[in-house]
Parts: sequence; structure tokens; C-alpha cells
Amino acid sequence: MINPKNLPIPSIQRLPRYLRLLEEAKARGERVVSCTRIAEDLGQLSVQVRKDLAITGVTGRPKVGYRIDELVEAIRNFLGWNQTTNAFLVGVGNLGSAILNYGGFVAHGLNVVGVFDSNPTLCGKMVNGHKIIPFAEMLDYVKMLNGYGASVQMGVITVPAVAAQEVADKLVKSGVRGIWNYAPTVLELPDHVVCENVKLSESFAVLTSRMRNRDS
Amino acid sequence: MINPKNLPIPSIQRLPRYLRLLEEAKARGERVVSCTRIAEDLGQLSVQVRKDLAITGVTGRPKVGYRIDELVEAIRNFLGWNQTTNAFLVGVGNLGSAILNYGGFVAHGLNVVGVFDSNPTLCGKMVNGHKIIPFAEMLDYVKMLNGYGASVQMGVITVPAVAAQEVADKLVKSGVRGIWNYAPTVLELPDHVVCENVKLSESFAVLTSRMRNRDS
Repeated sequence: MINPKNLPIPSIQRLPRYLRLLEEAKARGERVVSCTRIAEDLGQLSVQVRKDLAITGVTGRPKVGYRIDELVEAIRNFLGWNQTTNAFLVGVGNLGSAILNYGGFVAHGLNVVGVFDSNPTLCGKMVNGHKIIPFAEMLDYVKMLNGYGASVQMGVITVPAVAAQEVADKLVKSGVRGIWNYAPTVLELPDHVVCENVKLSESFAVLTSRMRNRDS
Repeated sequence: MINPKNLPIPSIQRLPRYLRLLEEAKARGERVVSCTRIAEDLGQLSVQVRKDLAITGVTGRPKVGYRIDELVEAIRNFLGWNQTTNAFLVGVGNLGSAILNYGGFVAHGLNVVGVFDSNPTLCGKMVNGHKIIPFAEMLDYVKMLNGYGASVQMGVITVPAVAAQEVADKLVKSGVRGIWNYAPTVLELPDHVVCENVKLSESFAVLTSRMRNRDS
């Protein structure tokens, strides 16, 4: 088992694209794939593919390659995508609605069990099958969930930056161990909660600086 | 000038957070800041901050630090954020609407000059001050823009994956040199067009794998 502090983040970030490629190959009826083929299809170096995939514990066999079934299972297991992650989403603006309406994360185990907003005109309305619950009622809702033997593991924050810390604090009280933060702000969280910030301005910076430095 | 092929991407990704910190300090009336202070405030190593900031061409003075005005200007210049980038956005679903309604990118020079969708029930409607134009009319609209001496530099793609390549092709014909792709698919583009993919599944993978490997 890898120490969480030493997780090879760039390798992990590449795992979803290997997984997509493998699932496509599997759908075409293929059963084995070589490291070289994966590398060529994704325009990467073969040695990097081998190293990335090794973190899942699976190694290819010489002259044969990887068994696709086994590798898919290993990647999904490593990422935690073979199990359900119960999540709350807070903030049903355009961004929150986009995440709720996009089916892709469901296949990765995301199971939204509560959708919250503090806007009274939104509360009670439905979004993609979820009734919007008043933010103030979150802890009561958690008690109800717990009463049914269920719990919440992840919080998705899609509120404006100014509201994000208050939302994070309540999510922590609700028992989440991971926060997916779309608000452009840094959150203060206890050590037992991991946080992944979606940094769209970083992505924009990479694009504009590449455009600018190409022009010059 | 840095060769665009050798741009230090991780350093560029950190520039927006330095910029935010510096602009906050400037708003408080501060005029100089040391590398150590920046490093402490952001929880980074001082040597990394110094190296990152050096790519903008500005170096701090010993025992004084950086002149905030100068550094803000240098970062914005390096990122291309001190000039306007005319952009088309294609796909006015929840995600497209979220980007149009979020003001943050305007401060970084993003100037949306055309909003397109292929859904006839959306065309003609307004979103955050932009009239939605039929996707089929994009090239006519570009001619009209060019007639006024304007042009489009960037395309923002917020359509489903299956439609993204067709949208990208038309954006290229429209003259864009950069594409900000939110669709979860790899685009084929000519060499003169740079592309930045927003990879939300990579971010999700990092979060779930950290949660899983912490539990074990």
C-alpha cells in the first residue's frame, strides 16, 4: 500500500485516460493489450505507461501484455471507482446543475444522496431527480440518513467563493472525508478530510500563456 | 523568450495564486512583499516561489523583496491577461452558462464576442447579455466580425463529447488559435492551434484515490 502522502499524483491523473481506452478496447471484444499499443494510442512514452500502471499492482506479461479485464478492475479498484461514494452537492447554480446532469461521474461511483442550496426559491424543486434541500437542514438530513444506516463520504462544493468555507465546515460536521471544491478559494479543513480543488483559472492560465508565448 | 514547447506548466499553474495573493496585498495598500512571505502564506517552499516568479522576468531584490506593482504587471503580461482575448463559446447548457455567468475570467482578459448553440429553442435567447446565435451561422458571424476589423482568438467548447470535434473544426475555420475544451474527449487540431483540456475526471480520480488510500 502506498503512503497517501506519497501518492504519485501525475500518474493518478493519467489513470482515467488509460481506463477509457481499455474500456473501449473491451467493448470491441479485445482481451489483451500491450503497453506499446496503449502508449501509441495516447501519444505517450511506453516506459511512462508501464510505470503509471504499475501503481495499481498489475504488471503486463512479456510478449503478451495486460489482460484488459484484470487491468480495468485494478485501475477502478485503485481509484476507488469500483465502490459507491455517497456525496452531498451544495450550490445548485449552473455549475452544480451541470455536475448533477452529467452522467460520467456516476460510472466512477459518485452517488449523490443529497442536494442543498440556501436559496429559498430553489428549495423543494427537483434537479435531475434530486429534491433540493435547504442548506440549514443538512445536519438533520444527515441524522435521518444515519438512522437508515447510510452516511455521506464526499462533499461537492459549487457555491460562490465567499460561502465556501461555511459550506465546508457543515460538510465536515456531516461526516465527509473528502471535498471536491469548485469554489475559487482555499478551504481550511481538519487533517482527516482530503480536498481536491478544481482550478479553472490554472487551466485558463496555461492556455493563454501558451497562446501568448506562441505569438511572440 | 521561452520556447512554447518548454513552458514550465507547473510553474504557470501556480502563477494565478501568486497573482491573487499579490492583488489582495495591493488592495491592503502594501507595496513590497518578500519571497518568504509569499511562500509562508501559500504553504510552499521559498525556493519554488522564487523559481516560479523568475519565469516572468522579474526578480526580487535582496532584503527588500518584490515590488508588488511590478510583479503583478509581469505575471499578467506573462499569462497574456493584460490584453483582451476575444472568444466564442459553443454550447449553452449548464456548464456553458456557468462560465458565461462567472465574472472571474473577464478580469483575466476573456472577452466573449459570440455565444453559439445548435438547439433552435435556445437560439435568439439571451444569456448574461449575449444573444445565442445558431451554430450553423458561425462562419457568417465571423465574416461580419472581420468586416468590423475584429477577430476571434479563442474557442470555449462546452458541448457533449460527441459534438466536440465538429465544433472544434468550425472554431478553427473561424480563426481561433486556442481552444479551451470542457468536453471529455481528445480533439484533433492543426499544429497552430493550442488546446487546453479541462479534465474533471482527473480531478475526481485524485480525490477518490486519496480518500481510498487513506482509508486502507
